[in-house]
Amino acid sequence: MAEVENALRDFFTGRQDLVDAVGGGYREAVTTLEDFVLRGGKRVRPAFAWTGWLGAGGDARGPEAGPVLRACSALELVQACALVHDDIIDASTTRRGFPTVHVEFAEQHRTGGWSGDSAHFGEGVAILLGDLALAWADDMIRESGITPDASARISPVWSAMRTEVLGGQFLDISNEARADESIDAAMKVNRYKTAAYTIERPLHLGAALAGADDTLVSAYRRFGTDIGIAFQLRDDLLGVFGDPAVTGKPSGDDLRAGKRTVLFAMSLQRADAGDPAAAALLREGIGTDLSDSDVDTLRNTITSLGAVADVEKQIEDLVATALSTLETSTATTAAKQQLTEMAVAATRRDY
Amino acid sequence: MAEVENALRDFFTGRQDLVDAVGGGYREAVTTLEDFVLRGGKRVRPAFAWTGWLGAGGDARGPEAGPVLRACSALELVQACALVHDDIIDASTTRRGFPTVHVEFAEQHRTGGWSGDSAHFGEGVAILLGDLALAWADDMIRESGITPDASARISPVWSAMRTEVLGGQFLDISNEARADESIDAAMKVNRYKTAAYTIERPLHLGAALAGADDTLVSAYRRFGTDIGIAFQLRDDLLGVFGDPAVTGKPSGDDLRAGKRTVLFAMSLQRADAGDPAAAALLREGIGTDLSDSDVDTLRNTITSLGAVADVEKQIEDLVATALSTLETSTATTAAKQQLTEMAVAATRRDY
Repeated sequence: MAEVENALRDFFTGRQDLVDAVGGGYREAVTTLEDFVLRGGKRVRPAFAWTGWLGAGGDARGPEAGPVLRACSALELVQACALVHDDIIDASTTRRGFPTVHVEFAEQHRTGGWSGDSAHFGEGVAILLGDLALAWADDMIRESGITPDASARISPVWSAMRTEVLGGQFLDISNEARADESIDAAMKVNRYKTAAYTIERPLHLGAALAGADDTLVSAYRRFGTDIGIAFQLRDDLLGVFGDPAVTGKPSGDDLRAGKRTVLFAMSLQRADAGDPAAAALLREGIGTDLSDSDVDTLRNTITSLGAVADVEKQIEDLVATALSTLETSTATTAAKQQLTEMAVAATRRDY
Repeated sequence: MAEVENALRDFFTGRQDLVDAVGGGYREAVTTLEDFVLRGGKRVRPAFAWTGWLGAGGDARGPEAGPVLRACSALELVQACALVHDDIIDASTTRRGFPTVHVEFAEQHRTGGWSGDSAHFGEGVAILLGDLALAWADDMIRESGITPDASARISPVWSAMRTEVLGGQFLDISNEARADESIDAAMKVNRYKTAAYTIERPLHLGAALAGADDTLVSAYRRFGTDIGIAFQLRDDLLGVFGDPAVTGKPSGDDLRAGKRTVLFAMSLQRADAGDPAAAALLREGIGTDLSDSDVDTLRNTITSLGAVADVEKQIEDLVATALSTLETSTATTAAKQQLTEMAVAATRRDY
């Protein structure tokens, strides 16, 4: 969506005077954040919010379209904060083929021969730039030009979305630290870190911008939750079985990183029920520095246990339920078609 | 200000359902944040904002008082984010006599015998809780009940304040890393990390809430900038000469931490001009693990060079200018008196 990028670019341009007044390298740091935001991603969240708005009767050629587009684009700034901070938390070194923000500033520190610890400096700058993205997300919504009524309608949605995604991130690191093996715990992370944040709340936001009634809001939210969870389950499969050329991550990355996914929890549950040797293999392997052949062994174990088939079935069921919710909703025909395509694209098996 | 605490407590109570829905320990983590916010500080920023509003004609017994108080209290949530994240960046272990947030969660991780690195876990949780405080600051403003007109008036002030304080924090770590020795660089940090954020913008916010005219806004901002810088200069003196029993920090803490304060930059400038031995002593000592007797030597050097007298003089001049700006402003008589007391208390020599 080129319009989203333009809206973001305009927003950054509008912040230049304020940033330049501070001076002393702040501008250069903010430019790093801007590059990160502008080069990034598929704009999934603005796309769902915008389509949600259209589906609730928004008019892409009407006077509200510009303000609404800006409000939807602000989701990318929340996402910039989430990614920059997550990359510190996960100690990730690359993102979208570039060094992560904290790595880039650590490198600048090292190259400059500055005093203190380079890694710590990089993390400090990345914490501050993530904060700035989060603060600016609010500024961008507030300055979007939407009506005070629309502002009031989206306020609880915007609030819930940020509270939920931070909760989902918290559960994620907390489950990993506690080595929580339950399917429930993994499912909660999917619900809040991904489903609510990526699809349910963006659609809800779009609906609230349009002043949709409760029936449509409820349909959107059920659709968004189901597709969002299915999307994360697909991502879990990709994290173990995905082609590095497609995912951009090393093969079996989630196993090495010790991610407590639903796929892994289901594998463990099945192994505990009938295959103690497989259970031991899974527990000993997860979160360790696995060789490629170790990864292959774990993959085969997970498949043989039937967990892959389980997860595929769950994705299929969720997508079917979601599409039927959408079909019987009061969204416009064009939006139904568009959202169906987006849902299928987000959950399709393509490896 | 007990009213500020009540407003904050009510806000946290209002967030409980959202937090409980996420579950899995999120509530306990949020309670840690709440405790941090409620036990904290002198509420300087809400006090300046509130007094600024009164001084611009706000009526403490009128219908706007409740909403305005809530909007002013939201400043404490921005401050919670700033402190929690700053403590990670500065690797501080205690704050207000308690373990810092990242240290507390690292300890929880260690005690629980959880997997992974305890320090890294603690920092991850603290990053997320700081983000939550920042997001909730916006929610609290938005839900404060101020009128749409007042919202529109404060929007650019709120935006500038957050952009400036993050810029000031960035300059702070960047100056330290680059070992920038200029007075200008140190003064910029004072301006943005402290003066704008602590006094100038809170007053500006109060004025904007009341719909004050440009003349009063301008007077408030000049007063706030001068007092804010004087306050930081006083803090710089305390960081080197303060009594640990009063400051709550080890004696000479800023010297050990390598803080590039105006006091230190002035000392260096004077030493470079006529005392190369003192200059060498200062450069070799700053940011190292100084013994108490080393600290004493550096203190004596700084005093002998005349830098303390310089800074005291600068504080005195700034306070005098600020009070005269305030006196000739159109603020109410009661607010002038109150702001004078607050200004004097914030900049007084009391060690």
